[in-house]
Amino acid sequence: MILRQEIAPLLKNPPVGTTVTVMGWVRAWRGNRFMVLNDGSGPETLQVVVDADQFPEEIIRSIGFHACVGATGTLAESQGSGQTVELIASSIQIFGKADLSKYPLQAKAQSMEFLRENAQFRMRTNTFSAVFRIRHAVAYAINKYFHDRGFYYLHTPIITGNDAEGAGEMFRVTTLDPINPPLDEAGKVDYREDFFGKATNLTVSGQLQAEIGALALGKVYTFGPTFRAENSNTSRHLAEFWMIEPEIAFADIENDMDLAEDFVKYLINFCLDNYLPDLEFLDERIQQAEKNLKAELRRPMGLIEMLRFVVQGDFERITYTEAVELILASTPYKKKKFQFPVAWGSDLQAEHERWLVEQHFKKPVIVRNYPKDIKAFYMRLNDDGKTVAAMDILFPYIGEVIGGSQREEREEVLRARMQEMGVHEEELAWYLQLRTFGGAPHAGFGLGFERIVLFITGMGNIRDVIPFPRAPKTADF
Amino acid sequence: MILRQEIAPLLKNPPVGTTVTVMGWVRAWRGNRFMVLNDGSGPETLQVVVDADQFPEEIIRSIGFHACVGATGTLAESQGSGQTVELIASSIQIFGKADLSKYPLQAKAQSMEFLRENAQFRMRTNTFSAVFRIRHAVAYAINKYFHDRGFYYLHTPIITGNDAEGAGEMFRVTTLDPINPPLDEAGKVDYREDFFGKATNLTVSGQLQAEIGALALGKVYTFGPTFRAENSNTSRHLAEFWMIEPEIAFADIENDMDLAEDFVKYLINFCLDNYLPDLEFLDERIQQAEKNLKAELRRPMGLIEMLRFVVQGDFERITYTEAVELILASTPYKKKKFQFPVAWGSDLQAEHERWLVEQHFKKPVIVRNYPKDIKAFYMRLNDDGKTVAAMDILFPYIGEVIGGSQREEREEVLRARMQEMGVHEEELAWYLQLRTFGGAPHAGFGLGFERIVLFITGMGNIRDVIPFPRAPKTADF
Repeated sequence: MILRQEIAPLLKNPPVGTTVTVMGWVRAWRGNRFMVLNDGSGPETLQVVVDADQFPEEIIRSIGFHACVGATGTLAESQGSGQTVELIASSIQIFGKADLSKYPLQAKAQSMEFLRENAQFRMRTNTFSAVFRIRHAVAYAINKYFHDRGFYYLHTPIITGNDAEGAGEMFRVTTLDPINPPLDEAGKVDYREDFFGKATNLTVSGQLQAEIGALALGKVYTFGPTFRAENSNTSRHLAEFWMIEPEIAFADIENDMDLAEDFVKYLINFCLDNYLPDLEFLDERIQQAEKNLKAELRRPMGLIEMLRFVVQGDFERITYTEAVELILASTPYKKKKFQFPVAWGSDLQAEHERWLVEQHFKKPVIVRNYPKDIKAFYMRLNDDGKTVAAMDILFPYIGEVIGGSQREEREEVLRARMQEMGVHEEELAWYLQLRTFGGAPHAGFGLGFERIVLFITGMGNIRDVIPFPRAPKTADF
Repeated sequence: MILRQEIAPLLKNPPVGTTVTVMGWVRAWRGNRFMVLNDGSGPETLQVVVDADQFPEEIIRSIGFHACVGATGTLAESQGSGQTVELIASSIQIFGKADLSKYPLQAKAQSMEFLRENAQFRMRTNTFSAVFRIRHAVAYAINKYFHDRGFYYLHTPIITGNDAEGAGEMFRVTTLDPINPPLDEAGKVDYREDFFGKATNLTVSGQLQAEIGALALGKVYTFGPTFRAENSNTSRHLAEFWMIEPEIAFADIENDMDLAEDFVKYLINFCLDNYLPDLEFLDERIQQAEKNLKAELRRPMGLIEMLRFVVQGDFERITYTEAVELILASTPYKKKKFQFPVAWGSDLQAEHERWLVEQHFKKPVIVRNYPKDIKAFYMRLNDDGKTVAAMDILFPYIGEVIGGSQREEREEVLRARMQEMGVHEEELAWYLQLRTFGGAPHAGFGLGFERIVLFITGMGNIRDVIPFPRAPKTADF
């Protein structure tokens, strides 16, 4: 049995004068005397005072950047600046050296790309340990928010025989022989012989199945991995990412917007209330990184300032039609500063969304009632016959963070929309049946987990907020 | 905006005399007067008193089993037995009829197989709504347990280029042409042209990657889907299931066993403390189902009785060697009642484990220090050179519920074990590096999520505790 005290909780109310044992990784080793230890429990470090004369030289020589060390001693008020308490070591245990002549990481800052390639060590850096603690915080807040409000967590399938939603390119899942698959009479792959007896793919969304849950348990949410086989090698796309999809019965688009706004504010408040030291570190990091940039390239607000700004007021709510009118009347439009055209019926581009949020309203914006032709078949047709009860929440920096809709609960309208959009009825017979028998108005939305973690941490690349990113030609670890 | 009150919270402290609106599905419709409504918020139903003379005939005719209905009225003390309050309806809204001449489900009980095939409706039944609320409860308890104890939730990859663990057959993930994949000079599939630039599969375990997290953040856990492409068409196997894998730095096998026992008891207590009405329903369900069985085929204990029994005492802890000795000295062994042979060095079979738990100790048992040759390469070699610091927790009915180990942190020992077991070093260079640089003793375990949900709900088939089961030739929805 190994006994130790964790540093972050220890420093909350340090028992000065008592003997404690801590174990962690050396963040700094100063003057062969001051060993700064972090154990991952938080961003906090504990300074361990090591009297080199009292320990074998082998021990002293083993202490160094990212070596793993245990120390037992008395907790004392600190003499130095920068910390309130320190540990006067009476015994030291070396768990694992980290020979700096061979260790990939070095004490100086290294590029994000390099750290990504060395993901077995990047969580030991101050930046990434903070990022992944915040990632945890957001995940926990999601579960807590829904649980406290009577939602049930529903695991929708990862492997699916549906390819009806058409949300994107899919990865095939198979156990057939990769070179000589069985073929049917028509010379096509005979998926009847595959593991599941049919062609299967990795899910792009759990929404359709979540509707089953909502129309029985009332309020459910999914929180699981989703996949896109799109060849997008950008700082905004992942091939594997996590998504949250709440779905509620007896709800319209108004209930949906209220829930989404309250939910996303809760997540940010949870981090501000419980993980401030990590956010402060990440805030400081951005300021350091932007120090040498021209003023106009710097963020207009600090990280924490921006998070507080987002949660403090109501989000602006406008219709798609109003959004188009605002953009058409805007200065950048008139001065031809937008790259993409704007016209009623086409999707808003990132540059338009950012103008609305960052320049015009200067707050998050919920746009609703999009043209039906640019939205999915399951979104509820509005009385105008032209728009659907869909809504997107747009944030500064990252653009769309949430997309949702009231679902079409009227069987005949849904059937017509499916035909219009080329969705095969027979594949989604069960989905139509949810309307035939005991249906109800219902609504939901999707939140891209990495999107909100990107926003809250202020990181620049979505690959840096997931422990092991998957992207084209990238599936290390 | 749709406003309603949810039935389960409403009944906790019913505001008799006030006007409320509820919405849900009709569970029973008695004498054209008493409509029993459930909205999924809990197993509780609310009886709505409908004066048929006050409503149009069309409304009255639409009320029926699993129709979706809203009702507004005054909450009153109930005159009848079986409920304390009832709703005197002043207005009724039909959201969705359920024409019983066409609706797949019927008011009488239907087979588990039939309900599985009609999973779009099975969550509306009393049994499955209880099962999936308990499933939620266990999931929430898992996140709460770890969060409250300073663990960080880590998302390990679903798509992986590792196939080193050898925990089972894997599903291939690909976007290559299914009939004419690109071939290399040797005539094999050229996975360099696949999406990820290499052959990729669905994960069988996140443990190896979780070790990266533990050796940086101290204490982490995974909770995600895992996959086995095994052709096991049984009531105990799924091709897609969820797994929880905590991993802790500065921990040995003793810490690991303590954590695992405390954890699994917490999950059960959480359900007993917070979801007792659902457990009572499931308990009663089993008693009804077993009523006509011979006494020896019935469970020796009721569901809730068994759950309380498991959490109240310490689990028995024995070594593998002791377990073998006990089995060799047992009556069923001497009377040749066991189907499989027993000898030091071979794995214990379910019949042996069940004898230890149900007959001999009559409590959960932790077996540790298994022969190294029947365990994975990463488990820490004990000083005897023959056994490893592995442990399994065995439960009544379901057998192994948790399997864990202290990990081999000594680089040279690990390297030798990898060679011995035929694990390729180059594929796991990063894993070995965790030992080369800043390593520490660490340990962890895996809990099969559906296994523990099966145990807590008392269901008989693992396909009935996951919303959309995946198994050979089965990937509906």
